[in-house]
Amino acid sequence: MKNYKLTLSYDGTSYHGWQIQPNAVTIQELLQDALRKITGEDIKVTGSSRTDAGVHARKYVCNFKSDTTISTERMPHAINSCLPDDVRVSDCEIVPDDFNARFSTKQKTYLYRINTSKIPDVFNIKYSWHVTFDLDFDKMCIESKKLVGTHDFVSFMASGSDVINTERTVTDLKLSREGDFINMYITADGYLYNMVRIIAGTLVCVGMGKIDDISEVISAKDRAKAGKTAPAQGLFLYDIEY
Amino acid sequence: MKNYKLTLSYDGTSYHGWQIQPNAVTIQELLQDALRKITGEDIKVTGSSRTDAGVHARKYVCNFKSDTTISTERMPHAINSCLPDDVRVSDCEIVPDDFNARFSTKQKTYLYRINTSKIPDVFNIKYSWHVTFDLDFDKMCIESKKLVGTHDFVSFMASGSDVINTERTVTDLKLSREGDFINMYITADGYLYNMVRIIAGTLVCVGMGKIDDISEVISAKDRAKAGKTAPAQGLFLYDIEY
Repeated sequence: MKNYKLTLSYDGTSYHGWQIQPNAVTIQELLQDALRKITGEDIKVTGSSRTDAGVHARKYVCNFKSDTTISTERMPHAINSCLPDDVRVSDCEIVPDDFNARFSTKQKTYLYRINTSKIPDVFNIKYSWHVTFDLDFDKMCIESKKLVGTHDFVSFMASGSDVINTERTVTDLKLSREGDFINMYITADGYLYNMVRIIAGTLVCVGMGKIDDISEVISAKDRAKAGKTAPAQGLFLYDIEY
Repeated sequence: MKNYKLTLSYDGTSYHGWQIQPNAVTIQELLQDALRKITGEDIKVTGSSRTDAGVHARKYVCNFKSDTTISTERMPHAINSCLPDDVRVSDCEIVPDDFNARFSTKQKTYLYRINTSKIPDVFNIKYSWHVTFDLDFDKMCIESKKLVGTHDFVSFMASGSDVINTERTVTDLKLSREGDFINMYITADGYLYNMVRIIAGTLVCVGMGKIDDISEVISAKDRAKAGKTAPAQGLFLYDIEY
């Protein structure tokens, strides 16, 4: 058996996230169904992360083991022919046996998009969070830098998670303006459940003047001190490094 | 009665164009229904152009006459509360009685977007035409310039149209690259039926090397000499000048 690595992208609007589950269409299920059709094998696909319902992926990586004779050149086209058009495989390569799309990850970058126009941009309703409050962008930039580094991010973890070690290292966090949008790019070695969306919600609170000092939110180690969880549709898995 | 001018935008994906018609949802119908709800009047809305099914509007203008007491400041919000979220009114103003959104137009700009990546961009399936052939962008730019000026554009008019005067003046036509996209911006005093989409289709033929000289297409005055009609989802009404 060979180990195949797939690179893909998807518009998460119509899907219930990555992970296969009963009574909901997920990306993992679509891929496994497509692979069954083209290889005749029952294949289990391992994904780089469990994106939530409605979250998008500009770049997603997964791997699977197979005895297929389909070449890596033909594979993207073969799989795409069995997928809906909002999920597209762009690349396939054979990787060493021990490559695991989830555990081999060095770091991942997420993008969170905020639409700040008075009237929401009709072409970005499904690809951003529309925030009507005036936001102090400079203050958001200053406070966001305090998240960079190794911290206990438990204040930015959704309740119900049973993770024990809540320390993560954010290697980069950049805010940029693009017309009426604020883009937040965050790179880390790993993420707690809903961490990026809670950080985005907290930075919006900073911009609104409701939260003054992000250091206090971090050191409180209390989810209640952070902002609310920003909606799924603004979030994109942007890049993955192995 | 006062004459109201509305500025709006819409994602045309779910709609059958602007003009009201039986058994299909159109933007004109949505607006007239919304205005009936908020004013209690039966209002006929005049639009700046009859966009086709699936065509988008970054900026659309329409007008209507009404005795309403709703202020122009409140109007966008009032109408938006009765519209689906992919149609948004951004501005309302009172204009002179003789203003007509269709006939008062000086010129209109359309944008046509072509996605040239090998694998289609999943976030732009509904907002571009995916062309997999290699396109000679420089050749497309050179040939596109021949369309600027006053010409008989009958070669670029869909059959079935009963327009008598097929002369139009294209004041500007620019092609630009934006990542894997080619954007075509065209400004004219008026357009024949499907003119922008046929021009886009023709320029793609130029890029593919199937059409060598746009001047010959113009002078032939023959629809068959131009390229095919590019699909609706790549087209945006971009700007309107009064």
